[in-house]
Amino acid sequence: MKLKFTKMHGCGNDYIYFDCFDQTVEHPESLAVKLSDRHFGIGGDGIVLICPSRTADARMRMFNLDGSEGNMCGNAIRCVGKYLYDVRGIHKTRLSIETRSGVKSLDLTVQDGQATLVQVDMGVPQLSPDQIPVLLEGDKIVDHPITVDGSPYRITCVSMGNPHCVVFCDEVEHLPLSSIGPQFEQHPLFPQRVNTEFVHVIDPHTIQMRVWERGSGETFACGTGACASVVACVLNGLCPMDEDIRVLLRGGTLTIRYTKKGVFMTGTATKVFDGTVQV
Amino acid sequence: MKLKFTKMHGCGNDYIYFDCFDQTVEHPESLAVKLSDRHFGIGGDGIVLICPSRTADARMRMFNLDGSEGNMCGNAIRCVGKYLYDVRGIHKTRLSIETRSGVKSLDLTVQDGQATLVQVDMGVPQLSPDQIPVLLEGDKIVDHPITVDGSPYRITCVSMGNPHCVVFCDEVEHLPLSSIGPQFEQHPLFPQRVNTEFVHVIDPHTIQMRVWERGSGETFACGTGACASVVACVLNGLCPMDEDIRVLLRGGTLTIRYTKKGVFMTGTATKVFDGTVQV
Repeated sequence: MKLKFTKMHGCGNDYIYFDCFDQTVEHPESLAVKLSDRHFGIGGDGIVLICPSRTADARMRMFNLDGSEGNMCGNAIRCVGKYLYDVRGIHKTRLSIETRSGVKSLDLTVQDGQATLVQVDMGVPQLSPDQIPVLLEGDKIVDHPITVDGSPYRITCVSMGNPHCVVFCDEVEHLPLSSIGPQFEQHPLFPQRVNTEFVHVIDPHTIQMRVWERGSGETFACGTGACASVVACVLNGLCPMDEDIRVLLRGGTLTIRYTKKGVFMTGTATKVFDGTVQV
Repeated sequence: MKLKFTKMHGCGNDYIYFDCFDQTVEHPESLAVKLSDRHFGIGGDGIVLICPSRTADARMRMFNLDGSEGNMCGNAIRCVGKYLYDVRGIHKTRLSIETRSGVKSLDLTVQDGQATLVQVDMGVPQLSPDQIPVLLEGDKIVDHPITVDGSPYRITCVSMGNPHCVVFCDEVEHLPLSSIGPQFEQHPLFPQRVNTEFVHVIDPHTIQMRVWERGSGETFACGTGACASVVACVLNGLCPMDEDIRVLLRGGTLTIRYTKKGVFMTGTATKVFDGTVQV
């Protein structure tokens, strides 16, 4: 059976997208494992199915490279928005997408008939330690001293649906992330492990971030991590609320705005190529 | 401008193939760099142009991920053969392909109208130290003791157009190749550096091999390395001449036969998908 697909990425976070309005993708779990392989398959961080929805403009299902089904991905949902506008001809600049984390709202910037930027409402951050979860007392964990692998760090903890621990640094380019990252990920304070963002505040509207994702290691970009980092900057008085903050990631730039209504993330979505694969 | 391509691999050595009978690929050097990127591009070990030839059935040009033009690749040329048969409809089981290392001859095994196995005449091995090159005396270097990073090894040296150093081991699964490989690659005995094969002889017709390629590190498969390993096995009396020897690589299996006429390599060529990319 032949399947059509489109390869897209958001800040280097790349997935294989299948249009399931027109075709049926069977056994997406095993297909994700097989096709994500970067030498023997198509190559990607996983596969995403763009499906019809009863409650939204479309429904997004994502499968990671180990075949597990994911909940939501800020970089992937931007690409789904672009696909719906550019390819499926849903010519609305406000789109709703059903995910396993609920229905998400997108706002598209359109140029020459194509979606170039997509803003995603990423929801309201959770700060209470039991919701993150982090095994510390208090109503929120801001600039809290801890010891990791014998060294002192100060952490700020934020949940964006998944747990984040933000650490401010004087520079992040030369951090030995592959040795520090796992120490945070497996620290006994975090019963569900944690995603750790190492953040250098360049100015109140520009921060640089590297991320160690639980289960994945260092990645090009983490949408919820960029949101958590800006929330942490606001909590520490380093960046203003209600204003656009640019987050420089290894794979590109995201613009994050933290407001009382929630966190809004804006970024590009890039199509790389169209393909057909026999499965 | 839109270009059509086909992604194929031979034992996991994967390239992006462009049919240049029907289309023109401009600036292949920069295109190879851009498209080979595994997160922001199509992803591959490089690009291969399948072009018309005045002297052979086709001409193969290959560009590595750094944009440099390569001479020949045993895994890629099998895929070129399969493409010419399956897609371009050149229904001959013996094909000639022009490369920067001369015209190569292929023999195809066809099943259900598709090429499944391709045999490549890889030419005659060169054994003299100055042709390899290796800075040792004698007419050939067989089971020669050397010291690498303080440890004793016994090496057999073979040129298959590029320099190879073969080392026999009791097992190769647990070898710390990323630390040993560079020590061989940069050893002062090899003025043009060297590809090193670590070989475990399972029986006289089956060997297991891991390879450290100069400039690339450990790879899934190295066609010339598999040939050099079988030649080294014959020189050391471990495998017979004129018979098929199976070489088990990380990315698959190659069958090598060393005869007086030269070395013949047989392996699969696998198409993964077809695509269209805007460049």
